[in-house]
Amino acid sequence: MKKYQQLAQQIIEQIALGAWLPGDKLPSLREQVTLSGMSFMTVSHAYQTLESQGVIVARPQSGYYVASRPAARSKLAPVKVTLDEAVDINTYIFDVLQASCDATVVPFGSAFPDPRLFPLQQLNRSLATVSKTATAMSVIENLPPGNEALRHAIARRYAQQGMQVSPDEIVITAGALEALNLSLQAVTEPGDWVIVENPCFYGALQALERLRLKALSVATDPQNGIDLTALKQALNDYPVKACWLMTNSQNPLGVTLSPEKKQQLVELLQQHNVTLIEDDVYSELYYGRERPLPARAYDDQGITLHCSSFSKCLVAGFRIGWVAAGKHARRIQQLQLMSTLSTSSPMQLALVDYLATKRYDAHLRKLRRILAERKQQTWQALHQHFPREVKIHHSESGYFLWIELPEYMDASELCEQAIAHKISIAPGKMFTTGRAWHNYFRLNASWFLGERELHAVITLANLIRQNIKE
Amino acid sequence: MKKYQQLAQQIIEQIALGAWLPGDKLPSLREQVTLSGMSFMTVSHAYQTLESQGVIVARPQSGYYVASRPAARSKLAPVKVTLDEAVDINTYIFDVLQASCDATVVPFGSAFPDPRLFPLQQLNRSLATVSKTATAMSVIENLPPGNEALRHAIARRYAQQGMQVSPDEIVITAGALEALNLSLQAVTEPGDWVIVENPCFYGALQALERLRLKALSVATDPQNGIDLTALKQALNDYPVKACWLMTNSQNPLGVTLSPEKKQQLVELLQQHNVTLIEDDVYSELYYGRERPLPARAYDDQGITLHCSSFSKCLVAGFRIGWVAAGKHARRIQQLQLMSTLSTSSPMQLALVDYLATKRYDAHLRKLRRILAERKQQTWQALHQHFPREVKIHHSESGYFLWIELPEYMDASELCEQAIAHKISIAPGKMFTTGRAWHNYFRLNASWFLGERELHAVITLANLIRQNIKE
Repeated sequence: MKKYQQLAQQIIEQIALGAWLPGDKLPSLREQVTLSGMSFMTVSHAYQTLESQGVIVARPQSGYYVASRPAARSKLAPVKVTLDEAVDINTYIFDVLQASCDATVVPFGSAFPDPRLFPLQQLNRSLATVSKTATAMSVIENLPPGNEALRHAIARRYAQQGMQVSPDEIVITAGALEALNLSLQAVTEPGDWVIVENPCFYGALQALERLRLKALSVATDPQNGIDLTALKQALNDYPVKACWLMTNSQNPLGVTLSPEKKQQLVELLQQHNVTLIEDDVYSELYYGRERPLPARAYDDQGITLHCSSFSKCLVAGFRIGWVAAGKHARRIQQLQLMSTLSTSSPMQLALVDYLATKRYDAHLRKLRRILAERKQQTWQALHQHFPREVKIHHSESGYFLWIELPEYMDASELCEQAIAHKISIAPGKMFTTGRAWHNYFRLNASWFLGERELHAVITLANLIRQNIKE
Repeated sequence: MKKYQQLAQQIIEQIALGAWLPGDKLPSLREQVTLSGMSFMTVSHAYQTLESQGVIVARPQSGYYVASRPAARSKLAPVKVTLDEAVDINTYIFDVLQASCDATVVPFGSAFPDPRLFPLQQLNRSLATVSKTATAMSVIENLPPGNEALRHAIARRYAQQGMQVSPDEIVITAGALEALNLSLQAVTEPGDWVIVENPCFYGALQALERLRLKALSVATDPQNGIDLTALKQALNDYPVKACWLMTNSQNPLGVTLSPEKKQQLVELLQQHNVTLIEDDVYSELYYGRERPLPARAYDDQGITLHCSSFSKCLVAGFRIGWVAAGKHARRIQQLQLMSTLSTSSPMQLALVDYLATKRYDAHLRKLRRILAERKQQTWQALHQHFPREVKIHHSESGYFLWIELPEYMDASELCEQAIAHKISIAPGKMFTTGRAWHNYFRLNASWFLGERELHAVITLANLIRQNIKE
């Protein structure tokens, strides 16, 4: 722990002990320098950290005071994604993801489903068609907001779910990740508070760091999803600007919110006039009879920016996603113009061609069936080989399993040990800024369980067993 | 002008008049509230603006003081790209660019060369090849830093110019714009000072705004390029972090720096340990005998991130660019992973295929010849039809002409009038945050001068003539 963190921690403990009460004035920066013997920079950094965590409040020309409501902390743990912390996270995530790209590694840590499940032949046929029909002017027709036929095709899929989304509010982006980043940027200013789930998709934490936003992590669990009571408290206690979450097949937990809960969520956010940035990239990968609606379907006030893509269910390499951005569509286009200019034109045209073949739904049915089978098989293999102390959280969608090791174990250490055996996993640390979920990891269950994969499961099981305390 | 801007302006004038001298303590925020009758928020905003412009300095626990060196201002005009200003610029640029996309508009305002000059047939053939050879695993092979064969092909082109650039330091991006944005992000923190040219590519100004950086605009002219004396002064007077500029066929002026000047530039930046972000997207479009070297070629200390793309010389719609990032290559990949994840896989493969045909250089020779001819023809047409009061700056590269109207005229007004006649131009206002260049505009001379284009030239000439004062 760095010096400023020590000091910050010390003050937090003093407050917890009652040494400083809500409203108390803390020693000034200069007084604290004398008291602590630390440098002005260190003290100042510590105070800024506490301020950004909502523990203390600065009053201009006056000084620092203990915040009046450090109450919500037990459940909420507001965390500012400071640069120091976040750079660590990024480097860490980068290393884990890089490892997953090595063809000799069994990619249980990967975020993408087995690309062999995608309709390569038909997509290649669409590419071939584009190679015959693309004109010099195609590039201009496909500038932001993106190809018109593609936006229409996406709008029709919303319509099939009974939702009214106009092609005019859809902006085509470089995957859902660009859609989410642009959405967040469109509705926030640096320093704003944003709610994320805990645990959540690491892309959200990275985006918050990049845009210098403050994260409020709201507890989310594998059975029921986001804790609405905690969310309500966060909305009451903090001037929240936006809420970035996954309502269907949440990454990494796999949980899908019930329709009632989605409705309550939207109502709550509407009451507080908080924008919902809905990351819905896995919604096509349900196992039930019907595709679940996004929260956006319950939003009659236009507070939702709904982001999705084809990368998890049709083709990863095209990098085509979108946002149904409502009134923010124009701003999103402006921001895109500043960052990547536009999405590649042949890729948009190839998707238009593929979607016109009407094979998409047949592909999705097959994909869902295989993913459900493979997840079941992987679950069985883990269940058979893993020690009893390990809990495997199963969800009825997508291709992730959320694995809970005994509390005293560290999944990051397991990750390092596994990499040495050419196996990647995604440890809980990737999905949070704090210490929570240190004993969890996400396992990609989209792979065919061949000899190599089964061997990897057994190796993982042995590694875990070595760490089990008798 | 908003209230806080009025107050800031008032204080600047007071300093200019000598009412406040360098080192003087200004009234505190509370005192200023009483003095000005404005709100605390307004006063605070005004002081922050002045601070970010380097006019005043905040000393913790003490107050605000007049900066000791507001000297360089006459020549340099340091401009913070505040959100207010920049949003205006963005909306404006967006509107101008949107207008250029309308197929019924003569696109003299466009930034891209006539796409009909690109080798569509051969590129489509490469797409068709990819449609036969792409495998399910291609996507993984093309993740950041990007396709290995493509990085090798780019490194070879550097080698042809006698430069040593390793494929390992090259990161493939969504066009040069993403490369530039990621480079800027990799080497700066919000609040840092960055030098740009005046006038400069609007993408630079937008990127600065997006990353909350402070811009120092250094005078640049159509004959000689950036003013190195002014640059030196800026480097002496401000803690500059990075310098973003174009050394070859500068946008919008078209000027190419001499080899001597490039060398001096690099030495100057090396002395001050300032990173050079070199935007080199037009360097293939020279008219002389030899491709000019980038400043990077003169940099033996690794301070340069060299950004370029295929979008201006081969294919706009693929959205493939790169940065030769030296020691920053890893950080750039991390940042990319957070924003767009990666560049589309089939597009990278198609380029690899095209470059392997070895037709690229023949295409470039033809492209350069046609662009030089068209620019000459357009120049002649403008010369013939435009009033004598208009000065047309010609440069020996690229496809832009930089048009100077009489000082009393406003090119933004001309732009509006031209749009009404279905003609787009790019007014000087797009290329600066200040009032400079209000009577200039950039004209895209890459189009075949057919009847429609010639008619547009005559219409423009008439519109200008209507605004000429006798």
